[in-house]
Amino acid sequence: MHTFFNVEDLGCLDKALDEAREIKQNRFGYQSLGKNRTLLMIFFNNSLRTRLSTQKAAMNLGMNVNVLDVNAGAWKLETERGVIMDGDKSEHLLEAIPVMGSYCDIIGIRSFAGLTDREFDYAETIVQQFVKYSGRPVFAMETATVHPLQAFADLITIEEHKTKARPKVVLTWAPHCRALPQAVPDSFAQWMNAADVDFVITHPEGYELDPKFTGNARITYNQMEALEGADFVYAKNWSCPGVTRPEDYGKILCKDMSWTIDSRHMAVTDNGKFMHCLPVRRGLIVTDDVIEGPSSLVIPEAANREISAEVVIKRMLEAL
Amino acid sequence: MHTFFNVEDLGCLDKALDEAREIKQNRFGYQSLGKNRTLLMIFFNNSLRTRLSTQKAAMNLGMNVNVLDVNAGAWKLETERGVIMDGDKSEHLLEAIPVMGSYCDIIGIRSFAGLTDREFDYAETIVQQFVKYSGRPVFAMETATVHPLQAFADLITIEEHKTKARPKVVLTWAPHCRALPQAVPDSFAQWMNAADVDFVITHPEGYELDPKFTGNARITYNQMEALEGADFVYAKNWSCPGVTRPEDYGKILCKDMSWTIDSRHMAVTDNGKFMHCLPVRRGLIVTDDVIEGPSSLVIPEAANREISAEVVIKRMLEAL
Amino acid sequence: MHTFFNVEDLGCLDKALDEAREIKQNRFGYQSLGKNRTLLMIFFNNSLRTRLSTQKAAMNLGMNVNVLDVNAGAWKLETERGVIMDGDKSEHLLEAIPVMGSYCDIIGIRSFAGLTDREFDYAETIVQQFVKYSGRPVFAMETATVHPLQAFADLITIEEHKTKARPKVVLTWAPHCRALPQAVPDSFAQWMNAADVDFVITHPEGYELDPKFTGNARITYNQMEALEGADFVYAKNWSCPGVTRPEDYGKILCKDMSWTIDSRHMAVTDNGKFMHCLPVRRGLIVTDDVIEGPSSLVIPEAANREISAEVVIKRMLEAL
Repeated sequence: MHTFFNVEDLGCLDKALDEAREIKQNRFGYQSLGKNRTLLMIFFNNSLRTRLSTQKAAMNLGMNVNVLDVNAGAWKLETERGVIMDGDKSEHLLEAIPVMGSYCDIIGIRSFAGLTDREFDYAETIVQQFVKYSGRPVFAMETATVHPLQAFADLITIEEHKTKARPKVVLTWAPHCRALPQAVPDSFAQWMNAADVDFVITHPEGYELDPKFTGNARITYNQMEALEGADFVYAKNWSCPGVTRPEDYGKILCKDMSWTIDSRHMAVTDNGKFMHCLPVRRGLIVTDDVIEGPSSLVIPEAANREISAEVVIKRMLEAL
Repeated sequence: MHTFFNVEDLGCLDKALDEAREIKQNRFGYQSLGKNRTLLMIFFNNSLRTRLSTQKAAMNLGMNVNVLDVNAGAWKLETERGVIMDGDKSEHLLEAIPVMGSYCDIIGIRSFAGLTDREFDYAETIVQQFVKYSGRPVFAMETATVHPLQAFADLITIEEHKTKARPKVVLTWAPHCRALPQAVPDSFAQWMNAADVDFVITHPEGYELDPKFTGNARITYNQMEALEGADFVYAKNWSCPGVTRPEDYGKILCKDMSWTIDSRHMAVTDNGKFMHCLPVRRGLIVTDDVIEGPSSLVIPEAANREISAEVVIKRMLEAL
Repeated sequence: MHTFFNVEDLGCLDKALDEAREIKQNRFGYQSLGKNRTLLMIFFNNSLRTRLSTQKAAMNLGMNVNVLDVNAGAWKLETERGVIMDGDKSEHLLEAIPVMGSYCDIIGIRSFAGLTDREFDYAETIVQQFVKYSGRPVFAMETATVHPLQAFADLITIEEHKTKARPKVVLTWAPHCRALPQAVPDSFAQWMNAADVDFVITHPEGYELDPKFTGNARITYNQMEALEGADFVYAKNWSCPGVTRPEDYGKILCKDMSWTIDSRHMAVTDNGKFMHCLPVRRGLIVTDDVIEGPSSLVIPEAANREISAEVVIKRMLEAL
């Protein structure tokens, strides 16, 4: 595996899930793979879970880890050619990227959507430069449009907690005070479409996710109807993806607090489990009683981030 | 050992000191204990000595180390339930703490006193949440009221340099330009009370430390009298602990420069050794000639921070 | 080897180059040297290449690495004696340095020129304190006046790409929008004087480098004449070194864009290779077509930073 952005990069999902189960039982069994190998984790944005879980996964595999926190304000990369670089950008990405690649074996990169230029974000402009110029395998630690380590951990968690062969999984939009990217719901939709689940998406009008991620998933504006009989409720806020009205890209179109997941919502599910990628804003996305209740999976879900990262890095090591 | 905040957590002090001596001779002898174990160091405040010495100790033991610098301004944790989190706090500690715990085996935490709310500080509100919710052994890398890795290193240093079976140890307040927490003098008092030394505390009126730390120690407002015949002079500034007048908590009550330790003070000791936890402000706490002189122990004292941390982490590893 | 600042610290250059070649073929062959040894990397200034390549080199050698980012604004060191430290400097270097030394085996330090006080910068005031008080071997990760890990990597690169026994190497000044230190050209001049090359320096009048670095090198103000028949063109900006007019130290005296290296400059060389230490500002130092062209060595040059660092750290480990 040379890149990890989309669900197809993993190949057969069932095989990947088997591998995840095996690694969860035996986290330190592949240290010969990572010996004298270096992971470079590049953060253009803050991170808690991703930083700790990915670093843990790489160390489980016996790797050395270098973490580079790029303060976007201090270290701006020029991306254009033919420019006289006399402004605030002190290095061109055409130099920076191959240099970073020369000091490591695998690159993990976090670079969020700017939410101002849809075309730039959805082309994954920044990350694709790393794929093209670094000379190294590259995996996403959340990019402008995908967060596959999260979606893979979500799927592992669903597999561990499902009580039916084909559970009903509902991705529901929920309100938030800030404009958030679509990377998490994009990837979650992509992965659920690839998994053997009954998948439904619900959100207010105008929040349609990009069809390249939602595919043939059922979509409804009626949240309560969507939640009926659900086995898993995956709540998440996202800002307007700009699919129907590109001029609304990145905007907050709705703050309707009736979408906040509370016991009333959970009551119509089939003893549904509550999921969220974290960090979560209580009182907006979900109420205290639901997230603290016995049906909440948010902590085991976060713990599985170590496992999804380890499977991905292990496969990249095997392919070196 | 599952927590390390107070001297009692170590059990028999003599045995702990023996262990410190043994580890100082053989720092790399326990690497099988730490193999595939991860220490997570969480800093809510800056650190130089603690960061380097604790990380060194963990690496001596063969552990992996993850360091998380929490910029208090950027990453605020909500602590209340029932709140709509639409402000600047993006994550609730009830999620953040167990998640951090899931990626490590042992947690070290630094969280200083805010010095505005005595009850909040002295209840160790932040740190106790980590003990309660992380599911991991937790040790203090200086909390609101204790700094036991420092006090343990201080005791090791006193044991190494004492020339009498039961030396006289004086903790003396000294002036400073900023309001400082009481964690260092609190822990030092607690540890000296537990050790086999003749312990005296001296400070200006109003600076009484909390009795739960000072116990039955002799306390005097007469600094020169306290220093007479001292074998060890432990200087430290602290702000008002608010014991007698809670409304003065965290305030600077005195800037009397006659308390600055100089050669005149050291002259009344019994060839007393000078100690301080560092960083130290010269000219306020102590004069250049005293801290640079042959009786100064500040550098070996700091070097022993590696040893105290290694004993503590080793014991936590053994109890996993 | 106990310090690494100047070319003489390496001893015989040919032997060092042999060692570099050997290490490049066998990066992980000396891990027994670094086992249970700790490198402390102290950064007073930002870093990308130096941070990643030096850390990689130390990990190649089996060492533990501790990185300390000193935010110059937050953690100011007092350097004078006899001062009452009641200002913004919270620790004296006479304590801080031996303490840092006590937690490691080798120190790497980055501390740029301030460019305001020539005497202070050229005396290497900060770095010399580390040499004097840390009790550890110290190497430069770019100091006020030298950047020997870069110059050594440059020499390795020239050796790898030269097509003549004694190539012509030209160090040429080029324009920049900010005032930059002289550390890179100082070290490059020093190393080229020591190497078996035909070395020429060219820059506008007033940019004379300190003679202790340029020695007997040929110097001309005529850039095109200097470049004629060059095998290697090493471009770099620097601010006024203040040799002839001390009052101009650190100033920008010239912004003449005719000095920017473009195809017209490269045309007079003998199929010359283009070199730069990076980061480079395109359009000021060099044009896109030259730096992207087949004669550009900037990426292999940066990659050799891992090798130069590994040779230096290996030698320090051997001498412990």
